[in-house]
Amino acid sequence: MNPHLASMPEDFLYHFALGTKTHDLQAMFGDVKFVCVGGSANRMKAFGQFIHGELGLNGDSSDIRDICEGTDRYCMYKIGPVLSISHGMGVPSISIMLHELIKLLHHAKCRDVIIIRMGTSGGIGLEPGTVVITGTAVDSFFQPQFEQIILGKVITHSTELDKDLALLLLNCGQEIPDFQTIIGNTMCTHDFYEGQGRLDGALCSFSNKEKQEYLKNAYEAGVRNIEMESAVFAAMCHRCDLKAAVVCVTLLNRLDGDQITTPHEVLVEYQMRPQKLVSRFMKQQLELLK
Amino acid sequence: MNPHLASMPEDFLYHFALGTKTHDLQAMFGDVKFVCVGGSANRMKAFGQFIHGELGLNGDSSDIRDICEGTDRYCMYKIGPVLSISHGMGVPSISIMLHELIKLLHHAKCRDVIIIRMGTSGGIGLEPGTVVITGTAVDSFFQPQFEQIILGKVITHSTELDKDLALLLLNCGQEIPDFQTIIGNTMCTHDFYEGQGRLDGALCSFSNKEKQEYLKNAYEAGVRNIEMESAVFAAMCHRCDLKAAVVCVTLLNRLDGDQITTPHEVLVEYQMRPQKLVSRFMKQQLELLK
Repeated sequence: MNPHLASMPEDFLYHFALGTKTHDLQAMFGDVKFVCVGGSANRMKAFGQFIHGELGLNGDSSDIRDICEGTDRYCMYKIGPVLSISHGMGVPSISIMLHELIKLLHHAKCRDVIIIRMGTSGGIGLEPGTVVITGTAVDSFFQPQFEQIILGKVITHSTELDKDLALLLLNCGQEIPDFQTIIGNTMCTHDFYEGQGRLDGALCSFSNKEKQEYLKNAYEAGVRNIEMESAVFAAMCHRCDLKAAVVCVTLLNRLDGDQITTPHEVLVEYQMRPQKLVSRFMKQQLELLK
Repeated sequence: MNPHLASMPEDFLYHFALGTKTHDLQAMFGDVKFVCVGGSANRMKAFGQFIHGELGLNGDSSDIRDICEGTDRYCMYKIGPVLSISHGMGVPSISIMLHELIKLLHHAKCRDVIIIRMGTSGGIGLEPGTVVITGTAVDSFFQPQFEQIILGKVITHSTELDKDLALLLLNCGQEIPDFQTIIGNTMCTHDFYEGQGRLDGALCSFSNKEKQEYLKNAYEAGVRNIEMESAVFAAMCHRCDLKAAVVCVTLLNRLDGDQITTPHEVLVEYQMRPQKLVSRFMKQQLELLK
């Protein structure tokens, strides 16, 4: 994927504080089969502990150690064949993580890895708490593409995701009766306030009517939720031939409002939903590998 | 700045876990005169402790408490008239923080606040460790503008920064003999690898020759360093009439390479340089207010 890498005497993954000279990446990561990523460091630690229990591994789940403890840019936990990594908020933050993750998997000689982003999002026309598996990641113009500026030129990449993987995840979701799971398009924006048509930012240059029209147009284009990472996640995984999926819970229905005022305990339960779904999927896949 | 805010019964700053109904923001923040922001949570905590000592405040500097402890999206410390806040990496991450910060300052009725981003960056044609005060923030095409997509339309904002503030900061830098301080243009990109012309990402679609040409063109356009937040920082502060500056240390000279392999202790000392400069500036300003 990058012809320059082969000629480098060392590769230091700066934002992970891991390197090919200082760490035996193949010994550390060679058996990884699933990578789960999400924005919040606390949530990805909690997911690591949850998966430790779900996979029935030995030892105390509260002992899991942050592999990236040499830096505070991201955190990373390894639980058997599962890596759980935080990526912060927005396209640039997740793209740095993905560059270094993909190089890490390459140096570790991992094969057939599945990567899943588990996140939170704003829903459109859905009951809050609904889990959306991304069919297609689209930009703010509802187009299935990701624009990147490379050496002063605009390059457009496809945001196609693995359709079979999305269907397998949908099946897992439908086996869990506690919440609704659907497949829909996910709009990826570069801003949480004006960029998502919110009226409650420090700045706002449009009316409630214009906002409602934009969200309705998004709904008609198949968009069911809005978040801030899916487009570059889909584009980079597609370019690197990695099987990838995005599973986000919706915290509110944006047609009803902008502020997230749901009680904390309810939000915590919502955020567990993608984790439960993805955990069920990974357990099924690991059974098949036996 | 946003006519909709006045009609909201409550404003919950979700990513700070602070709200107008649950917190007395004027009592908590009404005396703030300086806001210092930077990417890394650990660094902004260390800055809070450093400033506590520099301002000669009572109490133990190691006791400073994260005001945003209800969330892990950002951290925030208040040290006398100084707020120290982390913003993560990239334009979307800092823009969420700025929306909520600007609303916080508005709710707290703060006046004449100066906001300074202290960061790390890649230098162009500079000795590593040089501190660059941003003259103008430019985009990947070297233009002094920030493009934002609002309701499916591309809007362009000016990235003008306060010139007098930049000169005052330059004077402070020149009073510190340990390192070089200059004013130069800062290029803000949305990607750390391909977007900054790095050859060492997971993906790379250009040659070393094309990279060198791009960086040389940047240098000729007055660009002296590259980071990932200055354009939206400048644009939002400009729109909100906030005096703002960007002070970044360069960790490497990008004409010489892409990887950051400088020893950890040296990088730690480099990262202290913007803090020392900004601390000196704030102390001078507070003397003037006496």
